[in-house]
Amino acid sequence: MRLRLGMVGGGEGAFIGAVHRLAARMDDEFILVAGAFSSDWDNCRRTGASLQLDAQRCYGDFQQMAQQEAAREDGIQVVAIVTPNHLHAPAATAFLTAGIDVICDKPLCTSYQDALQLAETVRRSGRQLILTHNYSAYPLIREARSRVLAGELGELRFVEVEYLQEWLAQPLEQSGNKQAGWRAEPEKAGAGCIGDVGTHAWQLAQFVCGQLPVTISAELSSIIPGRRLDDDVRVQMRYANGARGRLWASQVACGHENGLRLRIYGSAGSLEFNQENPNQLWMRPHSAPAYCLTRGAASQYAENRALARVPAGHPEGYLEGFGQIYREAAQRLRHGPGAAPLLPGIESGLQGMAFIETARRSHDAGGQWTTLIVP
Amino acid sequence: MRLRLGMVGGGEGAFIGAVHRLAARMDDEFILVAGAFSSDWDNCRRTGASLQLDAQRCYGDFQQMAQQEAAREDGIQVVAIVTPNHLHAPAATAFLTAGIDVICDKPLCTSYQDALQLAETVRRSGRQLILTHNYSAYPLIREARSRVLAGELGELRFVEVEYLQEWLAQPLEQSGNKQAGWRAEPEKAGAGCIGDVGTHAWQLAQFVCGQLPVTISAELSSIIPGRRLDDDVRVQMRYANGARGRLWASQVACGHENGLRLRIYGSAGSLEFNQENPNQLWMRPHSAPAYCLTRGAASQYAENRALARVPAGHPEGYLEGFGQIYREAAQRLRHGPGAAPLLPGIESGLQGMAFIETARRSHDAGGQWTTLIVP
Amino acid sequence: MRLRLGMVGGGEGAFIGAVHRLAARMDDEFILVAGAFSSDWDNCRRTGASLQLDAQRCYGDFQQMAQQEAAREDGIQVVAIVTPNHLHAPAATAFLTAGIDVICDKPLCTSYQDALQLAETVRRSGRQLILTHNYSAYPLIREARSRVLAGELGELRFVEVEYLQEWLAQPLEQSGNKQAGWRAEPEKAGAGCIGDVGTHAWQLAQFVCGQLPVTISAELSSIIPGRRLDDDVRVQMRYANGARGRLWASQVACGHENGLRLRIYGSAGSLEFNQENPNQLWMRPHSAPAYCLTRGAASQYAENRALARVPAGHPEGYLEGFGQIYREAAQRLRHGPGAAPLLPGIESGLQGMAFIETARRSHDAGGQWTTLIVP
Amino acid sequence: MRLRLGMVGGGEGAFIGAVHRLAARMDDEFILVAGAFSSDWDNCRRTGASLQLDAQRCYGDFQQMAQQEAAREDGIQVVAIVTPNHLHAPAATAFLTAGIDVICDKPLCTSYQDALQLAETVRRSGRQLILTHNYSAYPLIREARSRVLAGELGELRFVEVEYLQEWLAQPLEQSGNKQAGWRAEPEKAGAGCIGDVGTHAWQLAQFVCGQLPVTISAELSSIIPGRRLDDDVRVQMRYANGARGRLWASQVACGHENGLRLRIYGSAGSLEFNQENPNQLWMRPHSAPAYCLTRGAASQYAENRALARVPAGHPEGYLEGFGQIYREAAQRLRHGPGAAPLLPGIESGLQGMAFIETARRSHDAGGQWTTLIVP
Repeated sequence: MRLRLGMVGGGEGAFIGAVHRLAARMDDEFILVAGAFSSDWDNCRRTGASLQLDAQRCYGDFQQMAQQEAAREDGIQVVAIVTPNHLHAPAATAFLTAGIDVICDKPLCTSYQDALQLAETVRRSGRQLILTHNYSAYPLIREARSRVLAGELGELRFVEVEYLQEWLAQPLEQSGNKQAGWRAEPEKAGAGCIGDVGTHAWQLAQFVCGQLPVTISAELSSIIPGRRLDDDVRVQMRYANGARGRLWASQVACGHENGLRLRIYGSAGSLEFNQENPNQLWMRPHSAPAYCLTRGAASQYAENRALARVPAGHPEGYLEGFGQIYREAAQRLRHGPGAAPLLPGIESGLQGMAFIETARRSHDAGGQWTTLIVP
Repeated sequence: MRLRLGMVGGGEGAFIGAVHRLAARMDDEFILVAGAFSSDWDNCRRTGASLQLDAQRCYGDFQQMAQQEAAREDGIQVVAIVTPNHLHAPAATAFLTAGIDVICDKPLCTSYQDALQLAETVRRSGRQLILTHNYSAYPLIREARSRVLAGELGELRFVEVEYLQEWLAQPLEQSGNKQAGWRAEPEKAGAGCIGDVGTHAWQLAQFVCGQLPVTISAELSSIIPGRRLDDDVRVQMRYANGARGRLWASQVACGHENGLRLRIYGSAGSLEFNQENPNQLWMRPHSAPAYCLTRGAASQYAENRALARVPAGHPEGYLEGFGQIYREAAQRLRHGPGAAPLLPGIESGLQGMAFIETARRSHDAGGQWTTLIVP
Repeated sequence: MRLRLGMVGGGEGAFIGAVHRLAARMDDEFILVAGAFSSDWDNCRRTGASLQLDAQRCYGDFQQMAQQEAAREDGIQVVAIVTPNHLHAPAATAFLTAGIDVICDKPLCTSYQDALQLAETVRRSGRQLILTHNYSAYPLIREARSRVLAGELGELRFVEVEYLQEWLAQPLEQSGNKQAGWRAEPEKAGAGCIGDVGTHAWQLAQFVCGQLPVTISAELSSIIPGRRLDDDVRVQMRYANGARGRLWASQVACGHENGLRLRIYGSAGSLEFNQENPNQLWMRPHSAPAYCLTRGAASQYAENRALARVPAGHPEGYLEGFGQIYREAAQRLRHGPGAAPLLPGIESGLQGMAFIETARRSHDAGGQWTTLIVP
Repeated sequence: MRLRLGMVGGGEGAFIGAVHRLAARMDDEFILVAGAFSSDWDNCRRTGASLQLDAQRCYGDFQQMAQQEAAREDGIQVVAIVTPNHLHAPAATAFLTAGIDVICDKPLCTSYQDALQLAETVRRSGRQLILTHNYSAYPLIREARSRVLAGELGELRFVEVEYLQEWLAQPLEQSGNKQAGWRAEPEKAGAGCIGDVGTHAWQLAQFVCGQLPVTISAELSSIIPGRRLDDDVRVQMRYANGARGRLWASQVACGHENGLRLRIYGSAGSLEFNQENPNQLWMRPHSAPAYCLTRGAASQYAENRALARVPAGHPEGYLEGFGQIYREAAQRLRHGPGAAPLLPGIESGLQGMAFIETARRSHDAGGQWTTLIVP
């Protein structure tokens, strides 16, 4: 039977809500049955109607939704939270407390303190919290991780990750754009570029390497005059074995759409992945020809090849990666935390918030090398 | 309300059936409620159960399904036919005759004669037949067509299209592979490479150019000894204005996964599209720098940009292209033939079969230039 | 000691003469000491002066130059012929007859009959004739040949070669452009696109495959109205083992600068080379990841790696490829025909002219398959 | 008349000497007439003989060469210094003092103090010192500079430059490799990776931007245990207008041959150049399609297009870039310092040494932001 899904956020004018819904439908593991799509009741109602939901199960408020759904025999089993960041923690808390599992968009919340508290709520509730770090679910990112952990690159030397966008290269938030608007408000977003795309880059690098750096040095800038949150982030990283790394996230880098690029270097070779063409992974062994792995091809580890929905040469993209999060969420929701071990959860969320918090401290201390907070 | 969808074919072990189902779910416009998934009743039943269908609506036979569904008040409104090729025509005929619209995989059927008869059935039935030439639904293929028809390339000079695969480079059909098996049997497939991928290349070229060649010269080969159908096809084309073209389709071209590549040259510039990265379209104006259009970017025609489900830089792939066929099928089924005018239908199917028929005649005459049959 | 070199053609306004001179200087194996640079005496004299030649050794006429240089003790040992095509044969004949070796630009001459006669002159003279099919001297083309002949691709299946340019996409020859001018005159050029770039594509394919096709079918077109020579050439090829091939050469293909691209397919894999980036060679084995060979890297055959003048990652280009022809010419001139066995000579020239002749016959017979003339 | 050139260094077993000689020959502006090719007299003599020099003009010692050549009426006009780094300053001083112009390989010398002294020697001598920062002479790097300075990218935001190699990824210097050997000795090299490739990256970024950063933060590492000089360098940069930059130079980055890549971002767009394919320059305007400039094409500024020796589509490479340095050196030597204003000279050398010195101070202070020394 399909899992009964609810949604908080994702009304008309939103972006990521529709992505979650499509990802949830992709493998037919979920059925959307309830929602609090917007704090604007009209928007919420219209959205529910367009999604063919029972009008009784459109709620003006997520607290009410959590309580009423928890009380129904056919109530939702899991909720997707796709609101602006400041509502992630209160909404997640409401559903977890009501005994309902949570799929939450990233970043986890708006402060490290809130993250710690939410982690405690998760622990006490015994429920799942799944975080949609979707890029880590690309089949070739999984392949990259398998190969790094299998030692194909030798000992880790360098980690280079960048996530570059141009969409805020002008002060778009002053023009009424809804997506740019809330992201530019500290009260709603909590963090700027570092939260929006920086945490993706951070999570991806760590996911593929299988380790976190020990200490970092960071600089957060607002390139556009008057912008209240950071729009450009540069972080240096040092790993336990002495390896070095750099992270650059920017939303004011002209010429980039979603330029998330990861390079890992070891003593025996390097690899490169570009999110904008997730059907290729470059392997560059030391002193031997570079070769190109393609998603779905026989050359992949069987468990990663199995992630492909269509054979090699039929490209997959962002939605399929997002769908993989939902596919694995279904596995975990059905079979418990041991299933889908690579799915990001509360610990990923905590690590992302610890990254932001450490980066801010380093920045405030003039870029001083700062030991990473380990939750 | 979602459109009630049935399916013929697509049982366990099939490939394209799951693609159709996912594509149908993508925009939530369809709900699968009935199926005759396999001539093997056990397979059919198991497939229906795994898809959570009512067991009463799993049928052992498509004729029975057509009659019973047509008789139900809540019967299917449209059926997807995803069987081996030889069943396309009889199944389509059964449903059309029963007053049910049809979405049919390509090629339309196994002979030009059958195609003519099916076209007549469509006409008489007053129902729709939609053909899943999915590549023509990529947003950047639509963009390419818009730009060609708007005259950006000047007068047409050359058309180059190739669809290269390596998956039959060895005699895979002798190893028990199900996909390779039926495709190698003249009785089930009707045509080899020319039907399987050749018609895709043919349709794509004509779709983007907005015209068919007038005369062609063709050679069909079986590179693998003992193979009963063609596995390599080379066609030369001449257009009304004197433009020349070439089509190469092969399933024995080592090193290619789904290498469908289209180049159109005019007097003022050329364009290039590679299916394996459908998020880029190259424009190469005469005497000026080449530039790269990306799917979803502001530089596209508004109507093509609207096809993107996620913004530029978030890659889309094969499934989204397939999903576009279903999205437009829903529009056409709801609003009649005038809606979704770019969706391939019976006339595309006829043209594909006319291509195969003309190519065979040319081949049989030693590659003689042969006037294209115009249905 | 450097070889004493003369030049016929290459005066002011010419293109390829300067390329030959630079290529000859590259490895310091030649010293230019005499020339008949132009039929315009003023041009010839000025060119000689700018090249710091002794004024006595600037000649108004190549016949006179051949005689006088042959008579000097310090006369030239070899002459480079870089005139329009119609002078290749008379100039080569003059120098060969005078006992002087010849380096000749391609195509060899303007008719197959002249080519046969020139071959006889070469044979009788006992001198060398070297033909500057420069693309075959790229280190990675040599690598491609080594790997094909070593059987890395298995049995030959398909040969695809194209040489596409846009520079004649408009009637440039009517605008006073010198390069376009003589190439458009049948009297001077002998052949159009097929001679200018078609023979390069033909020679390159055959060089890498190690074999010629047995029979071809050809079409030669003049796309630009009023053009007296072909500007677009399409040839189909059949090889002894049943392998198929296609050649497309065009000078009216918008968007291409010097798009010479070669793909060879065998039963075990394929390779691809693009002249515009000659520092990479793609190998695509069946069912395994594609890999990229780079010029100068350890992965090459030692004899091909030795051709690199700078290490891997320091790109080489067109001039270095041309320089390789001169480097090997020096070896052959010093050590006889056995040295530098891969250097194109009179037999390459003959084969090129036989290709043109056969292609014309096929074209004139409506594209009929025609057995390749084997000189 | 050709300029009479001498050479110090470049004997058998050397690498860059042959590159200088070929570059000097390329445009026929120089003739090599004297040399002190090696401190090993036999090597020097053999090298001179193989270069067909007069044995009288092969010298065992550069001091002697400077004096004797200065005394000859037909003595050298300019000397190329291609020794290990520690000899650059004494050799340059000897020739400048003797009134002979100098072309010197980079880095200028082995300490900032020596650089200041050498600058004073240049000033007092009234002679030229030309530094072979060859990458800045690529036609498309010149084009990039022209476009940045013309304001095409808007206001400078970010500078990203990296120069990555793998050739020292293992302790090659312990295996008897001559090139790796001297570069690993502090006494001969002065600096490690930062001098060898770091100064190239530094110079290139500044050349294209037209400005130096104001303050930097640096880390120099020796990744290979026991290596006495740095093999990995990471520098952060801040520019006068607040723009940020990063430089990464490494000789232990597996998978790279000569991965020199430059990206410049401004408020209106960005550009990207990869040294390994110097025939392409990517322009990425804000909110518009990226386009690709090709070397030699009509789209370039006329003065940069004029640098191309062969037309667009005929690739040029490393040697042509190096040749451009020599071409412009000849112009400057003939017409004085005003000619060839973009040619790197003593000021470039000083800036490179100031970069190394500042980077070391920053590193020694734990990566502290340090004001760039401005000579």
